[in-house]
Amino acid sequence: MISYETSQNMISLLPVGSLRSERVFLSDALGRVLAEDIIADEDYPTHPTSAMDGYAMIHADFAEYKALAILGDNPAGADEVASVENGICIKTFTGSLMPEGSDTLIPIENVTAKEGVIVIDKPVAHGFAVRPIGESYRKDEVLIPCGTTVTFAQIGVLAGINRVMVRVVQRPRVSIIATGSEILDIGESARNVGQIRSSNSYTLQALVTQLGGECLQMGIVGDDKSAIMERFDEALRSSDIVVSTGGVSVGDYDFVKHIVPKLGAEVIFKGVNIKPGQHDMVAQRGSKFIISLPGFAYSSTVTFILYVAPLMGRMMGRANPYEPIEATLKVPFAKRSNKSEFTACNLSFEDGRYWVDFEGKKTGSSAILTNLLGNAALMICGEDDGDLEEGTLVRVIKL
Amino acid sequence: MISYETSQNMISLLPVGSLRSERVFLSDALGRVLAEDIIADEDYPTHPTSAMDGYAMIHADFAEYKALAILGDNPAGADEVASVENGICIKTFTGSLMPEGSDTLIPIENVTAKEGVIVIDKPVAHGFAVRPIGESYRKDEVLIPCGTTVTFAQIGVLAGINRVMVRVVQRPRVSIIATGSEILDIGESARNVGQIRSSNSYTLQALVTQLGGECLQMGIVGDDKSAIMERFDEALRSSDIVVSTGGVSVGDYDFVKHIVPKLGAEVIFKGVNIKPGQHDMVAQRGSKFIISLPGFAYSSTVTFILYVAPLMGRMMGRANPYEPIEATLKVPFAKRSNKSEFTACNLSFEDGRYWVDFEGKKTGSSAILTNLLGNAALMICGEDDGDLEEGTLVRVIKL
Repeated sequence: MISYETSQNMISLLPVGSLRSERVFLSDALGRVLAEDIIADEDYPTHPTSAMDGYAMIHADFAEYKALAILGDNPAGADEVASVENGICIKTFTGSLMPEGSDTLIPIENVTAKEGVIVIDKPVAHGFAVRPIGESYRKDEVLIPCGTTVTFAQIGVLAGINRVMVRVVQRPRVSIIATGSEILDIGESARNVGQIRSSNSYTLQALVTQLGGECLQMGIVGDDKSAIMERFDEALRSSDIVVSTGGVSVGDYDFVKHIVPKLGAEVIFKGVNIKPGQHDMVAQRGSKFIISLPGFAYSSTVTFILYVAPLMGRMMGRANPYEPIEATLKVPFAKRSNKSEFTACNLSFEDGRYWVDFEGKKTGSSAILTNLLGNAALMICGEDDGDLEEGTLVRVIKL
Repeated sequence: MISYETSQNMISLLPVGSLRSERVFLSDALGRVLAEDIIADEDYPTHPTSAMDGYAMIHADFAEYKALAILGDNPAGADEVASVENGICIKTFTGSLMPEGSDTLIPIENVTAKEGVIVIDKPVAHGFAVRPIGESYRKDEVLIPCGTTVTFAQIGVLAGINRVMVRVVQRPRVSIIATGSEILDIGESARNVGQIRSSNSYTLQALVTQLGGECLQMGIVGDDKSAIMERFDEALRSSDIVVSTGGVSVGDYDFVKHIVPKLGAEVIFKGVNIKPGQHDMVAQRGSKFIISLPGFAYSSTVTFILYVAPLMGRMMGRANPYEPIEATLKVPFAKRSNKSEFTACNLSFEDGRYWVDFEGKKTGSSAILTNLLGNAALMICGEDDGDLEEGTLVRVIKL
């Protein structure tokens, strides 16, 4: 068995090829990853622009005049605006271009206006309330680098530069296959009490979706060699990553581990010194990957996060979406094995720090998916770590 | 003008009525908020279940026998399984029910099996590798409380209890109206250099979507009283919250602030001692709300986060999605006004703490939306705060 650290290195070295991109409407870009640098094609603003409601004037006039004649009105977006000259001002509104000749905006609150004249009550500094050319950005500036995930701010900036179409990274396609003759699909009636309701397929589908992938739900396949073989082959032809659950342990009906090599796939690794999920397997066929996870609900979810998520991230040109962060143990932790352990914990944020505790978390088998509910995270305890004291700084994967 | 704190209290007291729910397929539940407690309708597992591959046996036999006869095979999901008696074991796999009479599973690795017999190499404790009834949860246990946002773990747990349909909170409907004769929509050709490309509509639409609301994009309306009136009325008839940008300041063309009361809406507050966004206005007509934000891109985005987001949260029975967290200032901060200031900053997480700096952030008008790109957050500096020293613990809104 290889170590957790080695397995992570091997994932980071898998040849995912160059980024594949597509062009989408801005309305479909939310949550996608940019496949191009977004570059400003002009200064913004392109002209000096008023930042307040007031009167555009020449600053030198403060020394010469106590009152200025109002030449007219300059609403935002106006076509033609008169010029300002000494002794004259133009009423100018937030967002309006500053009239030719003016250099300063005196706000409404700083003057007394009557009968076509403003009396200056309180002068302002040179250039007051004028947005200079390029205040927000300059032509040719990289506004948003390639590889950025698009959220509301990127949408706004893209709209502001009139980008209707955006080049984004294609969603990696991930097929999910659940194996096991005991698995009963959602909505199906049970035939006997030994059947187990499927949850893996749906947990992992939700993870694929949350991570920005496109999920192909391949369904459940029983412990039948040719059926498994067919389903895997179909999935490989349809997707970039095939994720399966079950069939990788040491049981007589664990066929997946034998079938994957028969599909012409090269096994990259099989078996990692981690808990849960020691039997997982990563294989490659051409440009496609197969990641076979254990069948227990907690194990398959954790190993998906450890292996599939970073691979999907790499295919999208993103950092690992589940990069560990540091937190402080609120309580002692008893190590249970000589493996790298990934333990469900509660993560809270108080006094400027993240804290870890295990209140309400059950110990037991790796079947307990409910441990991942709530503000759950995975605490990492290294292969060489022993028991940990209260107050220890630990690494956690925020879910 | 009221204080920021008062304005937040007023938002928290707006009468949003009781939660409205709907039933959706599990496949549509991701990201939605549960409108029901999810309660287990049976113990899980319902029967003692094997957690490993091995041989089901009676623990007392360790004292009596060195070898046990293998009675047969018990694959997971099997219909009928024989019973275990003294001196006998049954090969049992991960996920299989424990056969009648057995109490312990000895793993494959702990025995030598040949010719229908296992020789015990290494005994295990009583109950080893047996998942007891109710290991994951008990009948009638609340697995997921009402008000929880559904992510991958909730999807898996819901699938595991065979929930095809789930009751979730309805998405609040939010209409967006951008006002201003200078606003040029995305894709439109400019008629003059004074026009400003629309970004507010799209930034706020993305925020509504990210927060789990349903957005109605009402488009841009010029500074024309009857046109504004009609668009607001249509939006009020169509949605729970009408969000507008522009038209609330002190300019001659700022019509929104005059029109909202004419729509029969009661103004809850107008003007808050904050920067940016001091002119924003919150009003109510029947069960509907109007939130009128300033027109500048940074101002409208920040005030949406301060006022619309918590109101949407309340309508969904959620906590404020943008609850401030604590971070440490990496550099000194110079306060610019006697208002509560919301300053765009960079938020990083190092050494177990969040840190705030302003590298690359531009000072200037409230038009600079690009300040919200990157790992941006909003640093809150209170009305009564002065300049802040490096190392100060500050509150930030993570975006």
